[in-house]
Amino acid sequence: MNGHHIVVIGGGFGGLQLVNGLKGAGVRITLIDRRNHHLFQPLLYQVATTVLSTSEIAWPIRRLYADRPEVTTLLGEVTAVDSTAKSVTLEDGLVVSYDTLVLATGATHAYFGHDDWAEFAPGLKTLEDATTIRRRMLLAFERAEVYTNPAEREALLTFTIVGAGPTGVELAGIIAELAHYTLPREFRNIDTRKAKVILVEAGPRVLASFAEELSVYAQDVLTKLGVDIHTGERVTECNAGGVMIGEKFIASRTIVWAAGVEASPAAKWLGVEADKAGRVIVGKDLTAPGLPDVFVIGDTASVFQEDGKPVPGIAPAAKQQGAYVAKLIRARLGGVAAAAAPFRYRHQGSLATIGRSAAIIDFGKIKLKGWPAWWIWGIAHIYFLIGTRSRFAVAWSWLWIYLSGQHSARLITQKEAASKDA
Amino acid sequence: MNGHHIVVIGGGFGGLQLVNGLKGAGVRITLIDRRNHHLFQPLLYQVATTVLSTSEIAWPIRRLYADRPEVTTLLGEVTAVDSTAKSVTLEDGLVVSYDTLVLATGATHAYFGHDDWAEFAPGLKTLEDATTIRRRMLLAFERAEVYTNPAEREALLTFTIVGAGPTGVELAGIIAELAHYTLPREFRNIDTRKAKVILVEAGPRVLASFAEELSVYAQDVLTKLGVDIHTGERVTECNAGGVMIGEKFIASRTIVWAAGVEASPAAKWLGVEADKAGRVIVGKDLTAPGLPDVFVIGDTASVFQEDGKPVPGIAPAAKQQGAYVAKLIRARLGGVAAAAAPFRYRHQGSLATIGRSAAIIDFGKIKLKGWPAWWIWGIAHIYFLIGTRSRFAVAWSWLWIYLSGQHSARLITQKEAASKDA
Repeated sequence: MNGHHIVVIGGGFGGLQLVNGLKGAGVRITLIDRRNHHLFQPLLYQVATTVLSTSEIAWPIRRLYADRPEVTTLLGEVTAVDSTAKSVTLEDGLVVSYDTLVLATGATHAYFGHDDWAEFAPGLKTLEDATTIRRRMLLAFERAEVYTNPAEREALLTFTIVGAGPTGVELAGIIAELAHYTLPREFRNIDTRKAKVILVEAGPRVLASFAEELSVYAQDVLTKLGVDIHTGERVTECNAGGVMIGEKFIASRTIVWAAGVEASPAAKWLGVEADKAGRVIVGKDLTAPGLPDVFVIGDTASVFQEDGKPVPGIAPAAKQQGAYVAKLIRARLGGVAAAAAPFRYRHQGSLATIGRSAAIIDFGKIKLKGWPAWWIWGIAHIYFLIGTRSRFAVAWSWLWIYLSGQHSARLITQKEAASKDA
Repeated sequence: MNGHHIVVIGGGFGGLQLVNGLKGAGVRITLIDRRNHHLFQPLLYQVATTVLSTSEIAWPIRRLYADRPEVTTLLGEVTAVDSTAKSVTLEDGLVVSYDTLVLATGATHAYFGHDDWAEFAPGLKTLEDATTIRRRMLLAFERAEVYTNPAEREALLTFTIVGAGPTGVELAGIIAELAHYTLPREFRNIDTRKAKVILVEAGPRVLASFAEELSVYAQDVLTKLGVDIHTGERVTECNAGGVMIGEKFIASRTIVWAAGVEASPAAKWLGVEADKAGRVIVGKDLTAPGLPDVFVIGDTASVFQEDGKPVPGIAPAAKQQGAYVAKLIRARLGGVAAAAAPFRYRHQGSLATIGRSAAIIDFGKIKLKGWPAWWIWGIAHIYFLIGTRSRFAVAWSWLWIYLSGQHSARLITQKEAASKDA
């Protein structure tokens, strides 16, 4: 093993793929994350909607590398990068030096300049976000059962989802199913089937990244599930009482934000140029401008495809970038000094589910919808989970819901810091 | 169905057994709890120690009674009982009238007049308590990996458990196993096998409610696991730095309180006499003194056996009381006005585990220890869980740990309100 030290910030899809790709490369690796777990974000909405439990889609990062003594895992929050001294500073002052740095720090939700909306309309990026949304949604039904004021009850039973990308559509579908099929028999004072699920999208259609025919199909399925779709309309205000959609105020006690993303502050740490969403504008080899020893990958990098379209912020893209950088580092360590072949993104297809047995898949030429798509979606997601235990656990939870109609994680845990909002 | 309305406060073992026992009795029942879930407390320590996930041992109460339209479930916190007007007031002002009231509100941990210790030494009664302990324990290992100061590292790797009843012993056993067998391969800067687990007990021996020979066996197993046992010693101080045991201060960043319990404020609500631990001193038919329409059961009632010993605060006792009161209410509704036969507690035995393959069972005449006891313990606990899904899920989690040595719920979630303490 030579002394080359690679520091990787972020244990998401990109960071892990990179570390995996460097197995046996004879380098020391320090993997730093502010969480102790890798999170399978594509299924996070299922934790928010009581389908899965937190531990089914998250794994302690350090366990993944127990058998690789050259990998050190540190829990810590990065506050600064010194690209001249080649070091990273953590929150508590610890300084870690690097030979090569890889920033894979992801993105968070963005409120387009309205950060004060965050309190009323949580986004969905972390396990805490998911349990917060789960708690608010379940509490809304509980409170509607207790309170007799009709206007208050209606506001409690109105659920608004802002943004109709895959996450927004998936959330709307499951909340509608919960209200219409899972919960009705359990309440005595309210009819949960009267709950309203509102999906607001500024663009002209839901699931805009899919072919139009699939988008039309998804809209149709959602409408049948009772979701009230508002395309081409903008949310202009979120507060404790509800949302303003265009000029119209809708009283709604539970609001979920699935609209915008903003990159982590990697560009600020490096002092390099960023795009509007804060992503580092990297070179064709994914290095930061002027910093050949610093790579930026995943949601925190702005990368373009050959046709000029941006590489989408999805798990397969981050993984491909992680694998690319691992290969490039190996080539450099092997003395291949020539300019690397540029990163090329291969789009493998887009998948989204809408409720319990509908899904859409867009492979470009091949397009699928309905239950065949749903089965492929389910099998693909189980395949991409980490480890036998999680695959069994998730498959079991889904099978159980399929057989019994009962969700397994309907728990209200933790209290709101300020519970005035609901 | 007649108009008789029974209000039950508390969806623990006693409350649920009571509601189950009134099936088909032709009464209206309102079941009120401040949580939306019933919790299987005997396995809560396994959530705190990363063995099980929260959703494996908790069930939404209202789901359990989906098929009984006469049962209404309300989420709410009781603030007062008016035994003259025969009504209960909830936190938000809602008033619920009753014909018969059953208080099954349980107990919480007590710090013997040192409530300021709660911040540093959380107890283990709720899912939040369990995830708090889990977070602190896992964070201690994480921080020890990052910090190089030897004294700080030692304090981080010292885990103190106060109280050597079943919960304290179970916690100590699993934390020691985690440190010695599960974690070592994952850390690079620390040897987790050097972690200290300290178990402090004011009484003369661990597991005092068991026969002495079993207690000796448990002590032996714990010692082999590396647990440092301090019997006959008292904790005289808990703070952010550690614990004072007698006159000696031990730097310890993670402290768990498994020592004392205190009943819920049921006696105060009723304005009746309570014992030292706040339990209502009930009559032989479990009614509150002078209030024939108010029953108090489970950990919030002080009940004695025929030999003068108190009925222990365990799940089977609460269940027997719930079943007794259900039968008594049925007899009253049937017009049997004669004095009821007094409640008689039947002790079915005591069980406790110490780590992965040791347990003790005390059936009185028959005493078991080692792996046969462990198997009986495991099967009994799976049997008492609610529903097929949970039984499968828990059995699967245990089997997985048995086969792989890997715990499934090693997640750090939620931040401390004040994180100064660790």
